[in-house]
Amino acid sequence: MAQSRTDFGAWMQARQQDVEAVLQAVLPAAGVSPSRLHEAMRYAVLGGGKRVRPLLAYAAGEAAGADAAHVSRVAAAVELVHAYSLVHDDLPCMDDDVLRRGRPTCHVAYDEATALLVGDALQSLAFHVLSEQSLCACPADQVEMVALLARAIGSRGMAGGQAIDLASTGQELSLPELENMHIHKTGELIRASVLLGARCGDGEASRLGALDRFAKCAGLAFQVVDDVLDAESNSETLGKTAGKDARQCKATYVSLMGVARAREFAAELREQALQALLSYGLEAVRLRELIDFIVLRKH
Amino acid sequence: MAQSRTDFGAWMQARQQDVEAVLQAVLPAAGVSPSRLHEAMRYAVLGGGKRVRPLLAYAAGEAAGADAAHVSRVAAAVELVHAYSLVHDDLPCMDDDVLRRGRPTCHVAYDEATALLVGDALQSLAFHVLSEQSLCACPADQVEMVALLARAIGSRGMAGGQAIDLASTGQELSLPELENMHIHKTGELIRASVLLGARCGDGEASRLGALDRFAKCAGLAFQVVDDVLDAESNSETLGKTAGKDARQCKATYVSLMGVARAREFAAELREQALQALLSYGLEAVRLRELIDFIVLRKH
Repeated sequence: MAQSRTDFGAWMQARQQDVEAVLQAVLPAAGVSPSRLHEAMRYAVLGGGKRVRPLLAYAAGEAAGADAAHVSRVAAAVELVHAYSLVHDDLPCMDDDVLRRGRPTCHVAYDEATALLVGDALQSLAFHVLSEQSLCACPADQVEMVALLARAIGSRGMAGGQAIDLASTGQELSLPELENMHIHKTGELIRASVLLGARCGDGEASRLGALDRFAKCAGLAFQVVDDVLDAESNSETLGKTAGKDARQCKATYVSLMGVARAREFAAELREQALQALLSYGLEAVRLRELIDFIVLRKH
Repeated sequence: MAQSRTDFGAWMQARQQDVEAVLQAVLPAAGVSPSRLHEAMRYAVLGGGKRVRPLLAYAAGEAAGADAAHVSRVAAAVELVHAYSLVHDDLPCMDDDVLRRGRPTCHVAYDEATALLVGDALQSLAFHVLSEQSLCACPADQVEMVALLARAIGSRGMAGGQAIDLASTGQELSLPELENMHIHKTGELIRASVLLGARCGDGEASRLGALDRFAKCAGLAFQVVDDVLDAESNSETLGKTAGKDARQCKATYVSLMGVARAREFAAELREQALQALLSYGLEAVRLRELIDFIVLRKH
């Protein structure tokens, strides 16, 4: 077990470095005009975060026997989308947050107008990274990959989840309503990360169905653990403003279930995620290790 | 001439109705959750605007013998991008504008957070529309079409133009600097509209080169005429706040050249645009009529 844990740590670090290198390469240099925008885009994306979505893409790509270089592009694309969503989510008209990944948020470090454009341009860049080079054997599949990402992050996906979140601030939510918000706000992009990684490989429909079930559980587990950490940690450990949900009267798994039950729920979701991978052998080891990482992380 | 003018009017109206129908269909109904977001997206997109970018896509598609249904999707995609850029551009942290297409801007009619998400979701929807169905004979070409749009609207395209615009407010710009801003801010999406329309058809490289030259002139001419109209019109005719550039001390073709020379310049660009189409016959008649429409319009 100690052996496998070390292995996972090394695997994770190598993939984090790999996606960082791709992000470095696809983001225009800070010297390229318009330089303030490019500098701010690099600030928002590089050198921070756990890169959970890229890691899920890599792990799913390995489970599907995908070309590593192709999966790297997908990993970068989903991280660009994630970074764009954080920059816009932190804006004064949204969560009005000043701390992210242990540093001032983008609109604090630059200005609101620049942060708005950073998010806009990062979304475009994600689609560019997904379409600039061939990423799978069949170009028609790649067109479908673009559609998959677009659907996952649009008004019926991630952006829709943000809108549900806005509408529910200060409202009493039921557990199904809270789950519906998270399935959209964070779950859809996590699902897309897994499915896009897998689509670089064999892309067999039944296997994709299993990965989809895995991804849904992983996405929800990620959010439940996020809520527990937000309630229990301080801002320094977390690298973002802690205890914010309670102060903003936002419903969370902790506010609706209490910490102990929320932890149990995360463990159940981990179990379901592992169940979904039963038809997989050793090729899915990283996905199994990742669900442990998601559920057992401390920040 | 009167005959051809009537034809163009009817052609334009039919295409405007066509793109309106596609936009109606691809935008989620206002009743679909999250309804406030969907209602605001429809408010921002439907029932307004000259639809110049869609018209250029249709005209280029006809010049390239493209399937009309495919071109309709492209036309909708570029209009969605245009609508997203207007919604974000009107936000308080950008141009802080209250009037657009004769109605309150999106953040005035709804709220800032919703307007932010409207723009974000419209961008995603544009990529979805471009990738959801097959749009040309060869899927690899469609992947390239996605890359073309992503490049045109990213940090080295439209969003970059907005950043250049931000950086130059209150600055004295030279004519080349002003041109550089507009090539990015409005020119790149107009270019993409023409090229994407054409890519639904034969897509021969030399023909695309000619259309690209046409599109560059058309994009710049559009902006020069916009500046003239902004200086000379009132808000009612224009449907958006008039005289804004002068009040914000923004450099324009009128402030740098004067109205008379700016009009001459627009006429020269029209001439160059027509020159670019010399190798085309009757199949490019709508493109020729459109450049006249762009240069001679009154609002």
